[in-house]
Amino acid sequence: MKPKIKTSQRILLTALALFNEHGENAVSSVDIAMELDISPGNLYYHYKGKEVMVAALLQLHQKNMLALLAAKSDDVLNADDVFYYFYMLIDHLLLFRFFYRSPADLTEKYPETDRARARIMQALESRLNGLLSALVRKGQLVATGTDTRLLAELLELIMMQACQFNGRVDPSDEESHRYRALSLMMVTVLPRLRLPADQLLAIQHAIQSHSLATMTSRQSAESLVLGGQ
Amino acid sequence: MKPKIKTSQRILLTALALFNEHGENAVSSVDIAMELDISPGNLYYHYKGKEVMVAALLQLHQKNMLALLAAKSDDVLNADDVFYYFYMLIDHLLLFRFFYRSPADLTEKYPETDRARARIMQALESRLNGLLSALVRKGQLVATGTDTRLLAELLELIMMQACQFNGRVDPSDEESHRYRALSLMMVTVLPRLRLPADQLLAIQHAIQSHSLATMTSRQSAESLVLGGQ
Repeated sequence: MKPKIKTSQRILLTALALFNEHGENAVSSVDIAMELDISPGNLYYHYKGKEVMVAALLQLHQKNMLALLAAKSDDVLNADDVFYYFYMLIDHLLLFRFFYRSPADLTEKYPETDRARARIMQALESRLNGLLSALVRKGQLVATGTDTRLLAELLELIMMQACQFNGRVDPSDEESHRYRALSLMMVTVLPRLRLPADQLLAIQHAIQSHSLATMTSRQSAESLVLGGQ
Repeated sequence: MKPKIKTSQRILLTALALFNEHGENAVSSVDIAMELDISPGNLYYHYKGKEVMVAALLQLHQKNMLALLAAKSDDVLNADDVFYYFYMLIDHLLLFRFFYRSPADLTEKYPETDRARARIMQALESRLNGLLSALVRKGQLVATGTDTRLLAELLELIMMQACQFNGRVDPSDEESHRYRALSLMMVTVLPRLRLPADQLLAIQHAIQSHSLATMTSRQSAESLVLGGQ
């Protein structure tokens, strides 16, 4: 049975969709009310202004990302699994991509968003660092300690950048965007990977043929909002 | 003799400094007038609104970047020169960094900025592509055609990202930011470079010791504004 969506949840989902599409700055509370066909007064009853919606969305995103980044063990993933994990990370970041679209402007408006974003970024970078270090220990990746830190930073940068595309995109465009990010990650890591040739080819093929998605479970914004309240 | 700065030029320089520091969105025409200690009416006499200043600044930046990117020949630069050139490119981008701070929001407000930014980005990417391809031809870089295109895209992304730091930074912070970008470029390109060990070490050392600046001529926003009118 499909759970009934409460008005407050519908508001959050609509706010998220509009923020992602146009940027938080270009969307007003009235826009959100109009899109939902409810009165601004009704919206205000649930959320006292945009900053409350932004805070609620950021909390959902933070909870989701920190759970995804909580490592059982970095050693579990081998080099050929890592790209599936990267794909999943990009997928989850894109669900809340307005947070990464104009971070500087968002921070100027809502200083408290900065701390949550910093916490997510720190968890992401430390997880990437842990994963790469584990691959180095297993002899699957060649990198010094400094290289590893820089690579983690670079992979994070590529993921952030994947969130910065503009306006409405049809799902296939969003998919290309995601694979463009994965290709950039691949070209960064590839010359350092020490894997059997068939495994290397399999990873490259999965990225080129856009077939990583079939291997990972996708999450929807809806399931997060419904599960998170 | 120092050239006399006209009011219109002082306005542009002040607008640029404030936009770079706070983001275009957070700065009003009145803020600019107050910073200059002139009346809003006087400002308006020179520039009819912020969009005229943004357009004038973007035109200066475009002219400057396109001149810098106009290649005599891609073959002139060897792998060990390339990082000095990268340093110079980052330096020039940072002079107008507000254009790259929240590109999506800026485009939403001033759709025409998108075309100029796209033209600069295209020139940058095609120049990087040309440089890398020349290094491949000379046997100094190992990369397929696809790798080369992706590497050019990635280097461009790193340069853009270098422009996205926040708020007022003292010059030494700006310098670290620049070298952080160069370190990310180095970790990307390093395992593909085929250079004598001493040349490789020299590049790494120049980046680590922040001593590339001494080899390149720096440009100031002032010289661009004064030269461009």
